[in-house]
Amino acid sequence: MTEPAFQDYYPEDTAHCYGCGRLNPQGYHFKSYWAEDSDDSVCWFTPYPQHTAIPGYVYGGLLASLIDCHSTGTAAAAAYRLEGRPMDSQPALRYVTASLQVDFLKPTPLGPALEVRGRAVEIKGRKVVVETWIQVEGEITVRGRAVCVQMPETMRSGGD
Amino acid sequence: MTEPAFQDYYPEDTAHCYGCGRLNPQGYHFKSYWAEDSDDSVCWFTPYPQHTAIPGYVYGGLLASLIDCHSTGTAAAAAYRLEGRPMDSQPALRYVTASLQVDFLKPTPLGPALEVRGRAVEIKGRKVVVETWIQVEGEITVRGRAVCVQMPETMRSGGD
Repeated sequence: MTEPAFQDYYPEDTAHCYGCGRLNPQGYHFKSYWAEDSDDSVCWFTPYPQHTAIPGYVYGGLLASLIDCHSTGTAAAAAYRLEGRPMDSQPALRYVTASLQVDFLKPTPLGPALEVRGRAVEIKGRKVVVETWIQVEGEITVRGRAVCVQMPETMRSGGD
Repeated sequence: MTEPAFQDYYPEDTAHCYGCGRLNPQGYHFKSYWAEDSDDSVCWFTPYPQHTAIPGYVYGGLLASLIDCHSTGTAAAAAYRLEGRPMDSQPALRYVTASLQVDFLKPTPLGPALEVRGRAVEIKGRKVVVETWIQVEGEITVRGRAVCVQMPETMRSGGD
């Protein structure tokens, strides 16, 4: 992918997320895009060798992290799209997760790149509901659902 | 704490979890215990400085990871307790997460130690449902619910 990712448009003061912040030097730098083949969003990530659940399988916390970040990214992109404006326009739209559901359908093999897909299924006011699924070598191993809400301005001050 | 943690009893071939495996040198080494003041289980963890959501707050993926690992640990400990036998007795009981729900009630400040509490609310056959909550400086910021199931023997071979 050569075009910018959703996360590349995040305002600087909200771009330090351990999962997807471009300004977090120790983070994972998850990157989300619109898929070329559908209206889904997509993110690819190859887990590190230490991301073990038990030997041979991916750690569930990493899978939850991927779903979390890809969902908030998809929420933002979907909200911009609904408003018919590009992601570098103002005011910036940035979402946080209020509620996260992750169903581990089967163990996810550790080694290959994971493909995370997402779809905004509801957009209402400050809330976007995003459904996600993770597939590896053509098989869906995890399904997620996140309720994302527009980040309160109070959070952006870095605390009270 | 000087007594062994729940995770210290995990069989060697299931002790490499990135969240709580004592044999994963790069992992977080989450440790769960029975609380001294109640029937709850408890786990303390101080996030690293890079575990940022946005500056000042803890990354949701780490909070989900804590809930995931503390839930499977609590599931095992509760199942041993129900059977009236110690955690170093055989056969070993080891759980994985089938389904994870995390509600982020409010932003979790980054800096102080987090206290994760857990309680097995249902034990039936191979399934244990664990409710959890994370508190920091006396305030609950996150609530979780995990459906844990006894690890299938097929997983312990490290894949097919």
